[in-house]
Parts: sequence; C-alpha cells; structure tokens
Amino acid sequence: MAVASSSDITGEKQTFKIRRLEISDKRKGYMELLGQLTVTGSVTDDEFDQRFKEISSHGDDHLICVIEDEPSGRIAATGSVMIEKKFLRNCGKVGHIEDVAVDSEFRGKRLGKRVVEFLTDHCRAMGCYKVILDCGVEKKEFYEKCELVNKGIQMSKYF
Amino acid sequence: MAVASSSDITGEKQTFKIRRLEISDKRKGYMELLGQLTVTGSVTDDEFDQRFKEISSHGDDHLICVIEDEPSGRIAATGSVMIEKKFLRNCGKVGHIEDVAVDSEFRGKRLGKRVVEFLTDHCRAMGCYKVILDCGVEKKEFYEKCELVNKGIQMSKYF
Repeated sequence: MAVASSSDITGEKQTFKIRRLEISDKRKGYMELLGQLTVTGSVTDDEFDQRFKEISSHGDDHLICVIEDEPSGRIAATGSVMIEKKFLRNCGKVGHIEDVAVDSEFRGKRLGKRVVEFLTDHCRAMGCYKVILDCGVEKKEFYEKCELVNKGIQMSKYF
Repeated sequence: MAVASSSDITGEKQTFKIRRLEISDKRKGYMELLGQLTVTGSVTDDEFDQRFKEISSHGDDHLICVIEDEPSGRIAATGSVMIEKKFLRNCGKVGHIEDVAVDSEFRGKRLGKRVVEFLTDHCRAMGCYKVILDCGVEKKEFYEKCELVNKGIQMSKYF
C-alpha cells in the first residue's frame, strides 16, 4: 500500500492531503465547510481574495491549513492558528488555534486530530511555548486525545 | 475637581492616564507588572525594543495598552488585544484580549475594568463582531462586570 493513501472502513480508497489554504480553495468547498461551523454570510470572490492576501501577509504567523480529499477535490477539514508575540516568558510566543472543522461527510477518519497536530507542530517549530484554543465543553474529550488539557474558561462579548 | 483626576480612599490625589504602550515603558515598571501575572524571564533592553517593533508593525491589529500613574510615573495596569481576520461571518474579525494585569499596589481602583473597556472599545471601532479572552474561573465575576459572558472552555498544551 502506498504511504500517502489509506482505506476507509468501507474499503473504498481515499487519499487525504494536508496543506496550507490556497486561494483556489474557495472553489473546492472551503466556505461551505466553514458554514458547518458557524454563519459565513455570502463572501464574493473578490472579498475572499482580499482577505486571503491580508492573512497571507502575516506569513508563518497566521496559518490556515486544509485537508483535501484528492479523489473528489473537496476540502474535507480545516483549522487555523495565529501566533501572538508577547513580552512575558522571555518575549515568548503563543499559538491560538481557531476554526477547526471537519466536513460531516468525512468524519470518523481522524482528520480533526490531523489538523490539530499539524497546527501544533507548526507552533512548536515557530518557537511557541504553548498552544491554546477555546471550545464547547462537549469537545473537551476530543482535544484531550490531541494532548491538550483544560486550563480555564472562555469569556466573550458579541457586538 | 478636575475631570482627569480622582481621589482614592485615603484622600490622596491620583491621576491615571490610559494610553498605548510606549517603548520607554520598560523603565516605568512594565515588565515587573507582567511579572505579577506570570514568568517574564530577564528581557534585555534590545530584546524589548525588538519585540516592541515587531508588535508595532501590526498597527491597530495588535494593541497593548497601559495605565500610568502620573504622579509616580509607574505603570499601574495593562492589557493587550490582537485582532484576528477570519473568512467566516462575512470575513469578520475577532479581538483576542490577553495579559490583563493590575499592579497589586493599585488594586481596588477599577483599573482592570478600564483596561478591558479600552480594549473592547478598540475592537468595536476596528469592526470586530466579538471580543474573547481566557481566564481562570476565579476571574469570571470580574469579567461579567465588564459585560463578557462565559461561553466555553480553554484547552492548552505547553511545549
């Protein structure tokens, strides 16, 4: 069996590739995937391109990764991480993981764990002293499998 | 009584000024204040200047505010906010508040609330749809007074 491919439980062959978000991913269902997480609104191609460039301008400090299902060319999972530069901890850095989502049709294949590991590895390579994220309490067990531990609560204010 | 001044409970006159962090604030006890929050390590003047420039390069997308006690020239409180650009919510933006600290000698003067309001106002002006932060459960009541609500849990992994 080739290294880069795997079989799912039905025996159907699937190949998943994890990589950075590309500007062409809007056509591969990236926004529809985010729509499974929360409200996306109607983002035009121009708005998408503009936001893509703004995020890309931060280089390795703001990384969005996707997993593409290569046979179908669809985006199956995603997650992002933004690196914060601090003064404390010897001018340390912290990775903030956001917007981890797995397409409902691709669940049960450990894609979420692969996304979190990819983002965590990036933060480690960037010299962060920790990585953090916020989630609903029902996701606690999943993130514990990704080797994160519960450390506090999230507070928020919507405008 | 002048608008910009206030009296503390001992009757001693104090004037607090809230503003952005300046590079000279290292000499006004900024690092010592962060040291009341967590480990700071020994940051040299050159390292401080370098990190200050890195953070400043993000302009309004990464704001650190301080409250200076003008009579003593000491930094009495601080907090920061980093603005994340997303694709979801019509290419929305989220403010991440971090590292809110009030010097132990200046507590009970509502400086923490003033810091959170300053950072929250900044996020609103920048067009964010929400502001979020993580804290220990013992700080929940304080942030509720700042009009934030508990919305989930924080997970973290230290390297």
